[in-house]
Amino acid sequence: MASDVFVLLKTYNNSTKVDLTHDLSAQRAAVDRVLSAFRSICGPDGVSLGEAVREQHGKDESVHKCRPPDVVVFPRCVEEVSALAKVCHDHNLPIIPFGTGTGLEGGVGAVKGGVCFSLRNMDQVLDLHPEDFDVTVEPGVTRKALNAYLRDTGLWFPVDPGADASLCGMAATSASGTNAVRYGTMRENTLNLEVVLSDGRIIHTAGKGRRPRKTSAGYNLTNLFVGSEGTLGIITKTTLRLYGIPEAMVSAVCSFPSIQAAVDSTVQILQAGVPIARIGEEEREKNRYRYLTAYSTDVCVPLSRLPQIIVETKEDLLESRLTGPIAGHVGDGNFHCLMVVDPNDPDEQHRVHLFAERLARRALAMGGTCTGEHGVGLGKRVLLQEEVGPLAIQVMQGLKETLDPKNLMNPGKILLQGDP
Amino acid sequence: MASDVFVLLKTYNNSTKVDLTHDLSAQRAAVDRVLSAFRSICGPDGVSLGEAVREQHGKDESVHKCRPPDVVVFPRCVEEVSALAKVCHDHNLPIIPFGTGTGLEGGVGAVKGGVCFSLRNMDQVLDLHPEDFDVTVEPGVTRKALNAYLRDTGLWFPVDPGADASLCGMAATSASGTNAVRYGTMRENTLNLEVVLSDGRIIHTAGKGRRPRKTSAGYNLTNLFVGSEGTLGIITKTTLRLYGIPEAMVSAVCSFPSIQAAVDSTVQILQAGVPIARIGEEEREKNRYRYLTAYSTDVCVPLSRLPQIIVETKEDLLESRLTGPIAGHVGDGNFHCLMVVDPNDPDEQHRVHLFAERLARRALAMGGTCTGEHGVGLGKRVLLQEEVGPLAIQVMQGLKETLDPKNLMNPGKILLQGDP
Ligand SMILES: Cc1cc2nc3c(=O)[nH]c(=O)nc-3n(C[C@H](O)[C@H](O)[C@H](O)COP(=O)(O)OP(=O)(O)OC[C@H]3O[C@@H](n4cnc5c(N)ncnc54)[C@H](O)[C@@H]3O)c2cc1C
Ligand SMILES: Cc1cc2nc3c(=O)[nH]c(=O)nc-3n(C[C@H](O)[C@H](O)[C@H](O)COP(=O)(O)OP(=O)(O)OC[C@H]3O[C@@H](n4cnc5c(N)ncnc54)[C@H](O)[C@@H]3O)c2cc1C
Repeated sequence: MASDVFVLLKTYNNSTKVDLTHDLSAQRAAVDRVLSAFRSICGPDGVSLGEAVREQHGKDESVHKCRPPDVVVFPRCVEEVSALAKVCHDHNLPIIPFGTGTGLEGGVGAVKGGVCFSLRNMDQVLDLHPEDFDVTVEPGVTRKALNAYLRDTGLWFPVDPGADASLCGMAATSASGTNAVRYGTMRENTLNLEVVLSDGRIIHTAGKGRRPRKTSAGYNLTNLFVGSEGTLGIITKTTLRLYGIPEAMVSAVCSFPSIQAAVDSTVQILQAGVPIARIGEEEREKNRYRYLTAYSTDVCVPLSRLPQIIVETKEDLLESRLTGPIAGHVGDGNFHCLMVVDPNDPDEQHRVHLFAERLARRALAMGGTCTGEHGVGLGKRVLLQEEVGPLAIQVMQGLKETLDPKNLMNPGKILLQGDP
Repeated sequence: MASDVFVLLKTYNNSTKVDLTHDLSAQRAAVDRVLSAFRSICGPDGVSLGEAVREQHGKDESVHKCRPPDVVVFPRCVEEVSALAKVCHDHNLPIIPFGTGTGLEGGVGAVKGGVCFSLRNMDQVLDLHPEDFDVTVEPGVTRKALNAYLRDTGLWFPVDPGADASLCGMAATSASGTNAVRYGTMRENTLNLEVVLSDGRIIHTAGKGRRPRKTSAGYNLTNLFVGSEGTLGIITKTTLRLYGIPEAMVSAVCSFPSIQAAVDSTVQILQAGVPIARIGEEEREKNRYRYLTAYSTDVCVPLSRLPQIIVETKEDLLESRLTGPIAGHVGDGNFHCLMVVDPNDPDEQHRVHLFAERLARRALAMGGTCTGEHGVGLGKRVLLQEEVGPLAIQVMQGLKETLDPKNLMNPGKILLQGDP
């Protein structure tokens, strides 16, 4: 029974209820008042009120309900982002950054209405330094676009979430993917960020134009913004580490008699110091996100706890009468249950919701996390509180208030703070 | 001329003037009032007013003048640290964490007097999980003690500043060393921290007992405290990544016709994806810290700028009539001028000070940092401002105020804030 770890099963997670009792009509009036200011900043084509455009920007690839913003703006440069933010700040309008909308946690939903900043028009690769293994990109550049751009240099950027996400969006969600065991995640590969704060101030987390591979200079602002999911500021540039494309990537697919055996082998490989990028994975691209509208769980546990949690999770799926493929990054203890749900079956939705919560709590009980790479977004805010504890949450809220005292940046994400 | 990069030269940096106009006598009176509270928390032996002990705890391995604290306390567990901090908080007494005092930036100097928390009595290795490649240690455990403890497991912790520093102190200064190119620095290898805030609250940056190798759960508090040099809280536990000891470490020492050639080869090696721990270094242990009382500069620049900055620095040394060995981690662009100075020669001290500032600004002009691994401490606070800019400094100050509103944690380090 234990040998079929990566077979197709079936599952899902409930969309989160968000309280919308704040005064939307007053906010709409405020939006109306600032439209001409927006248009004078980014041109008439840079401001859209169209329903289709707003809907498209109120939803990511998750099952979370679409929450369209009141208006979408398309700035062309950091100065425009800053000027737009200042207007929002003066009128207390929420700001929701939008990269490519491939997020899996409802991160772009405008749960309190407001202004979506679509960054797709800022799509330049800037300052490529092949000799220094670094590059700076604007927020409209996706990882595939960057790697296409790099093709002739012998370099690549290896962080690879399945989707062709924007690199600044990947920084915002602290994304990783199957190469993380060898190359690390966005946390380890981001050298500097340009960020527009909610009041329009532009900061460079490591100083303007700086790109040392290593620094001990003051507080690590870069990694405070990496993973902040648009709640602390708008990332308008990211400077990334690049790597030489490995001359030979030896890939092997192995079958193991049991989950324990698979994990044991992984541990031995890691112990031997063999450089590995992807471990124990099979046909990832094919199976993993077959159901793109589905919700994917995202727990991560210490390596040695993987067999137990996978066995328990499979039992739970059976008992809950749910199926869903399980796919794991065995090398770092992160695995996903890919859950699709029948939108017309509220009972199934409920069972899925309870299942996903049990799974997260099982991971927490094993010293793990409820989210290895997708982020907290809307659905895991309560779990985050359980995970880090009330005092760490207080600290996070303090940081949020320092950087965004009016709670305008992507409100209602990560923290419950500011919710009615 | 360019081929003798790693020969012995000679150099140094001025100790920083610190304004001491705050009311020390009132503070001494406050210390007297709390001594009995301290003694009841950590026992009579856990509180020292002795001059020798205070002197020993007011100085690190740098040239910065000794600034003894008013009293040194030796807590035995996190509860004692927390209780002591609460007393300090109630009486507005500065708190200065002390690891092993191997810092190179004057970080432990009690520039405003106050209470030194020596953490040497908390020296237990806790929760070793060989199968998960992680371990949790108390702040009195040094890197060599940990590696001795690990000897039979086939695992090691590779971050290796020259000194046998405490691992929590290494986290506090975001330390690295010669293995950083392969294994990363403390930033990449710290999974979780237990931290006592200035008011005595105990937080776990990734949640109590958690140790996933990867997480996207909320703001990255771990890396906010890594590198905070005791100014945000007292680190009382750190959970670290471990690695398998590589079966074969092939080391090679190469001579190059020029600095450019050395750097070019390094770039080619990195590009080929060869896993390397230490590059282009020679006889590090032997030469690098021969003069332990000397000050070491610590700039880090993008790889391709190394030849130019080293050539210019050598010219500057000549023109300044100074000598000092230059040793570099060519793999990450970080290099040191090891500067010893004749304490009886104020003119030399002055020239050295100016030289070190010019060197830092040269690195900044090349997109680098004034400190690759030693931290800001006392001497680089103005340079940090130039490096990250006034707005990023504002953000850092905001973070500091959020976590330490009374400015009690290691005041006068990293930021100029709170200085009279
Ligand atoms: C098929 C598929 C496979 C996936 N596989 C993986 C995987 O293996 N690993 C993994 O980690 N993720 C994976 N993901 C998730 C997804 O790719 C990431 O969350 C991605 O990093 C989001 O980038 P984006 O540009 O699409 O951001 P969006 O979806 O547009 O936004 C995501 C969040 O980031 C914020 N944001 C976006 N851009 C910015 C910015 N410039 N400044 C500030 N905030 C910003 C948004 O406000 C939102 O909160 C997958 C998704 C899909 C659909
Ligand atoms: C010979 C020699 C070689 C060195 N080589 C290198 C090198 O190659 N790379 C490198 O990075 N460094 C190097 N260093 C610097 C030094 O080892 C590091 O700065 C070290 O990380 C400091 O650790 P410590 O325990 O001695 O801290 P201390 O010197 O005691 O303190 C340093 C700073 O950290 C704070 N601190 C200490 N412990 C804690 C704690 N538990 N919680 C909160 N704050 C704390 C202190 O308040 C102070 O601000 C070298 C030093 C020497 C003497």
